[in-house]
Amino acid sequence: MCSVIRRVKPIQRVAALSLRPRGHTKESSYAAAQDRSSSPGVGSFAAPLCGNARSCCSMVAKTKGLLFRQMFEGESCTYTYLLADTETREAIIIDPVLETIDRDLRLIQELDLKLIVAVNTHCHADHITSSGLMKKRLVGLKSAISRFSGASADIQLAEGDKIKFGKHYLTVNNTPGHTDGCTTLVFGDQSMAFTGDSLLIRGCGRTDFQQGCASRLYESIHTKIFTLPDECLVYPAHDYLGQTVSTVGEERRFNPRLTKTKEEFVKLMNNLNLPKPKKIDISVPANLVCGLHEG
Amino acid sequence: MCSVIRRVKPIQRVAALSLRPRGHTKESSYAAAQDRSSSPGVGSFAAPLCGNARSCCSMVAKTKGLLFRQMFEGESCTYTYLLADTETREAIIIDPVLETIDRDLRLIQELDLKLIVAVNTHCHADHITSSGLMKKRLVGLKSAISRFSGASADIQLAEGDKIKFGKHYLTVNNTPGHTDGCTTLVFGDQSMAFTGDSLLIRGCGRTDFQQGCASRLYESIHTKIFTLPDECLVYPAHDYLGQTVSTVGEERRFNPRLTKTKEEFVKLMNNLNLPKPKKIDISVPANLVCGLHEG
Repeated sequence: MCSVIRRVKPIQRVAALSLRPRGHTKESSYAAAQDRSSSPGVGSFAAPLCGNARSCCSMVAKTKGLLFRQMFEGESCTYTYLLADTETREAIIIDPVLETIDRDLRLIQELDLKLIVAVNTHCHADHITSSGLMKKRLVGLKSAISRFSGASADIQLAEGDKIKFGKHYLTVNNTPGHTDGCTTLVFGDQSMAFTGDSLLIRGCGRTDFQQGCASRLYESIHTKIFTLPDECLVYPAHDYLGQTVSTVGEERRFNPRLTKTKEEFVKLMNNLNLPKPKKIDISVPANLVCGLHEG
Repeated sequence: MCSVIRRVKPIQRVAALSLRPRGHTKESSYAAAQDRSSSPGVGSFAAPLCGNARSCCSMVAKTKGLLFRQMFEGESCTYTYLLADTETREAIIIDPVLETIDRDLRLIQELDLKLIVAVNTHCHADHITSSGLMKKRLVGLKSAISRFSGASADIQLAEGDKIKFGKHYLTVNNTPGHTDGCTTLVFGDQSMAFTGDSLLIRGCGRTDFQQGCASRLYESIHTKIFTLPDECLVYPAHDYLGQTVSTVGEERRFNPRLTKTKEEFVKLMNNLNLPKPKKIDISVPANLVCGLHEG
């Protein structure tokens, strides 16, 4: 394992490790299935990207001194992201999954990184986070999650907080709607946004569990994500069709749900009739304590 | 669909569409399972990347004017790659899969791309290519594969050929060993290499089917891939562990198979005792004719 983990700077509001479980919380990270076919009114085929919008197709980020890895967990179709400063070796991991902790830690060691923060974009319901177990295996690692998630973590994130690693940082944007504690983490130069379950590629997170609110999600995406640059890369927490990345420009133009009016969106989201996530009953209680049940 | 597909420049040796099936070919694109645990002698944990090698961790390519997408097909764990010039909109697709043709064509249309070449890194045995069906749906599209594959295609690729799209190009490097017709496609500035089944992330393609030759694969990787810059991104045709990308430097250092001596490698590969790929009996005959059986 990484022999030396630098103590992470107190970003903001570093909380004690006291538990703050929320009674009967049913928040869900299970993302709704894609529904292109159910949105005939979008007309995405009629107007391909052109003119100024074409620049949004330059999909390869250009940030110097950044190590970036996208990894996939097949059972829950979750993406885990590893970002590091190639000079200081300080690294953060976003949405790590319990089942793939060995893979992730092996890579972190091979690349000689100092993992300082494991951040969850929200309290997931479809898988258990590995952030708690990672903390047991990497000295000095801090966990982070939104203060509105109801989950315990070393760092309780709030709007505008910066999660720093070396010369890089992510800015916390609250994007509630799928759950109260959903965040979108935006890379410093706005070249990338980690949208969790708020915005998926041509989709979005479901809103039919406790805390879920379609109207709020619509507002979050339109005011906090769609206002980012068109060329900003969108890296979601899940994808079920083998898509790995999109852009803000693409989603603004082609997302079959978010191109609807707010009223249409709310009606659609309130009538999805999706099955309950298989792991919700074990995942949510576990994820309220960094994936670690109390012994 | 893309309304206008520019006629692709005759790259080299544009062949007629005559069939050249190879009798009793059993080549396989099924990639062997990862075997880190079976390679105790690698010692990758003992020496993390450091010093000059650290530069190889800068994983984000910097090419301007390039659109790049990596896509995944879950049943065969195949990666499909889409690359395009953001100005001319000319695009190529690497290793497209029949099951995901609608997803891929939809994206090509949404992004307003002109797909000019569908190239297979080799004649796959684990899935059927969509290149033939794509040709039926996109006017002017050309298929391409190594001349040593035994498969029919519009463009029979040879060592050093350049597959051009706009101002960008891929160079064909023959890397036989998994099959006779395996190629590694190297992006013009050597920032990316599409290694097919020759080199996988911490693994490599199996060599126990007809044409497979462990000794030849070892030579191919060491002389044609490991001689690329350390920071060159490695994009394989498959990954079974949710890894999406590696680098030449990483694989030279941490690949548990390729860090062995040639003799050790050959012995390992000749004793993997892997099951036969499930789809080989339908995939290989189909892929010899661009995924389209003759009616």
